[in-house]
Amino acid sequence: MGRISQSMMSLIEVFNEYAKAEGTVKTLTKKEVKTLFEEEIPSYLMGGKNQEEVDKLIQDLDEDGDSEVNFSEFMILISKLTCTFYKML
Amino acid sequence: MGRISQSMMSLIEVFNEYAKAEGTVKTLTKKEVKTLFEEEIPSYLMGGKNQEEVDKLIQDLDEDGDSEVNFSEFMILISKLTCTFYKML
Repeated sequence: MGRISQSMMSLIEVFNEYAKAEGTVKTLTKKEVKTLFEEEIPSYLMGGKNQEEVDKLIQDLDEDGDSEVNFSEFMILISKLTCTFYKML
Repeated sequence: MGRISQSMMSLIEVFNEYAKAEGTVKTLTKKEVKTLFEEEIPSYLMGGKNQEEVDKLIQDLDEDGDSEVNFSEFMILISKLTCTFYKML
């Protein structure tokens, strides 16, 4: 498997792993997003955001306003963070 | 390194590797995008697109119209492909 497919697969795996914890397996609840952030996204990628800013980020992520984060909303976050990471290097 | 950081790092590495082949190291020329597609993105992810459709995709990718694909434009493609991949699974 190429590096791009491997990365895509890995992002899908992480999403699915956290999404299945509670509620529907196709979306992340706010609680699941928080756990995923805490366990999988190092603080330097979050730019030292505090809880209030993380809450705001989750709210902004939920583009369709259903209080849950679906896979395409999750990928918007990943893209933003990867661009931030790219600029830091 | 966590799985998310690992994936992000991998996408940045692939982009940089192809971007440095010709022209500016910060962007992919059309030729570099084609080589990256051919070598790194399996045909099933491209949905069996022909050369004309790939040309159109490259043109669409170039949001700022400078004929080169920068990192955030590249991440838009990766997000779209990952969402396609997610739906296929």
